[in-house]
Amino acid sequence: MLGNRRVLLLTDGHLGVFTSKTATCILRYRPREVVALLDRTEAGRDPADIIGVGRGIPIVGSIAEAMRYQPHSLLIGIAPAGGGLPDDWRQFIHEAIERQLDIISGLHLMLADDPEFARLALAHGVTIHDVRRPPEGIPLGANIARTLPCTRVLTVGADCAIGKMAVALELAEALLRRGRRARFIATGQTGIMISGYGIAVDRVVSDFVPGAVEMMLVENKHHEVLVVEGQGSLIEPAYSGVTLGLMHGCAPHAMVFCHQPTRKHLRHHPEVPILPLPEFIELYERLMAPVFPSKVIGVALNCVDMSDAAARDAIARAEAETGLPATDVIRFGPDKLAEAIEAML
Amino acid sequence: MLGNRRVLLLTDGHLGVFTSKTATCILRYRPREVVALLDRTEAGRDPADIIGVGRGIPIVGSIAEAMRYQPHSLLIGIAPAGGGLPDDWRQFIHEAIERQLDIISGLHLMLADDPEFARLALAHGVTIHDVRRPPEGIPLGANIARTLPCTRVLTVGADCAIGKMAVALELAEALLRRGRRARFIATGQTGIMISGYGIAVDRVVSDFVPGAVEMMLVENKHHEVLVVEGQGSLIEPAYSGVTLGLMHGCAPHAMVFCHQPTRKHLRHHPEVPILPLPEFIELYERLMAPVFPSKVIGVALNCVDMSDAAARDAIARAEAETGLPATDVIRFGPDKLAEAIEAML
Repeated sequence: MLGNRRVLLLTDGHLGVFTSKTATCILRYRPREVVALLDRTEAGRDPADIIGVGRGIPIVGSIAEAMRYQPHSLLIGIAPAGGGLPDDWRQFIHEAIERQLDIISGLHLMLADDPEFARLALAHGVTIHDVRRPPEGIPLGANIARTLPCTRVLTVGADCAIGKMAVALELAEALLRRGRRARFIATGQTGIMISGYGIAVDRVVSDFVPGAVEMMLVENKHHEVLVVEGQGSLIEPAYSGVTLGLMHGCAPHAMVFCHQPTRKHLRHHPEVPILPLPEFIELYERLMAPVFPSKVIGVALNCVDMSDAAARDAIARAEAETGLPATDVIRFGPDKLAEAIEAML
Repeated sequence: MLGNRRVLLLTDGHLGVFTSKTATCILRYRPREVVALLDRTEAGRDPADIIGVGRGIPIVGSIAEAMRYQPHSLLIGIAPAGGGLPDDWRQFIHEAIERQLDIISGLHLMLADDPEFARLALAHGVTIHDVRRPPEGIPLGANIARTLPCTRVLTVGADCAIGKMAVALELAEALLRRGRRARFIATGQTGIMISGYGIAVDRVVSDFVPGAVEMMLVENKHHEVLVVEGQGSLIEPAYSGVTLGLMHGCAPHAMVFCHQPTRKHLRHHPEVPILPLPEFIELYERLMAPVFPSKVIGVALNCVDMSDAAARDAIARAEAETGLPATDVIRFGPDKLAEAIEAML
């Protein structure tokens, strides 16, 4: 989706590892496509000093200023809970369209359906890409994935915004480097922007979530191994249904459990403590067992807020607690977990 | 929704306890509103001889013939998996609109969005009620139900089409008879048709299912006890996400587990065996525990295909296995389970 584009990344006032999850991931996985960030709060700073990625990419305070970097597209760099548009961002989109920038958005709100934006886009020869819009013709789930020849690995996790997409991307890349015919399957807007393919399952009518997953798996059954991006968490009250629908639609041969060791309760629900690792893993396996028995084969820890020493300690602890290989795939590389997947093929 | 209407119930070729679940439930809970059934296969027979309810209501073979019973509305009496419209039913709807019958439909397919039907409806002064259409403005789940003053009871179950709606309706009625300020909360199309209120959560965008449930609970928080209709099953691969989203959005104080003793595997997935009762109940409790600890307080058995003696045996067995009160609320009345709920109030 981003191939050959020159992207202006809009994060205005929201730049942060978790507050602008979309922007952070685009900068990590598609840095060459990003020509500048638009953020009045952080203008003049280096993104790497704020979120650890994007070193050297300029942050500007207006679209006028951004034009010197000749962007093709404005990419909405956040996906807030509920997926609405911050009020004062309409003006940015308006101005971007007038300057003939395409719009790439992962919001629940469909910008192309906004009469003002639609009219303006047509008048200026601009395309609005709402990547969260599901395709037509999604079937009802048929419990069909289990019959497909490809090996399926699903990332699952303790919470939302904890690393399930990044881990899936890293594992698919690692398997490709090892000569495996692997493919990353995106199930959320950022993964779709990065990989150019996928369905945002949280935007699909609830009855059709497993069918949406099956539709992607059937299309990609000729690959040797599909690494599917997980969503939410079984204990996240706002997203657990999406999590389980995706799990059952995917029928994974194996799961990789993602966690952030410093997170003790859900990010959006402090009243919900995160379960002990072995109990949490068993809960995921328990829900797969009646439909398609599947095991967690590794633990991916997000140690972004820990020292190297603390990260190594946390990894050793997770391995001792679970008896499974564990690592931080961003800090220490994905090979340990890629090996665990390869051992299944 | 059905109040004072004279309804013609369309089941053409699908009349059966499970194949026309909508029609069966309408005939059980709103028999006075149904003036006739339209079914070419069964014309001339008595519905009670086929599905056990609707004694004496005529089955006719054409809309022309049905007009002698002066219907106001044509109600689509099936909700097939995936929610599409059988091909040859378009003509029935077309003819019904031309004869000025309102259309009441619980299909996923929105009949009012069909250009032909919409045009025709306007021309003939007819309303098309798509009861599965979600309202505007459903918020993201906020894990808010747990803070509301009303007691919430959710029916859950082993499979879909096993009695969760009927049990919820019967329990709400029983509690009302006992002087409790109870209300049934519909979460599916048939429950909405019967009660005139509710949201079909399987039609809501997956990210917003818990929010849809919370929206209904907030609106009804002044009732003493809400009996919420459950959906699907945690092990039904096509619907499990809807089930879990509804559970977490509802934050029930107690659950009633619905089962059909003769069902040994899922109705739509013979490859998925139904779990033993105590294990199944524990799975439901396990998934509620991290969010809002909740217990199953009774078992509702659907013994439609068993003799009285066999039903009594099955009930005794379920009570012995689970240590919980069990009954068939249709055959033996809901009081045993209503008492278990009352004991919590």
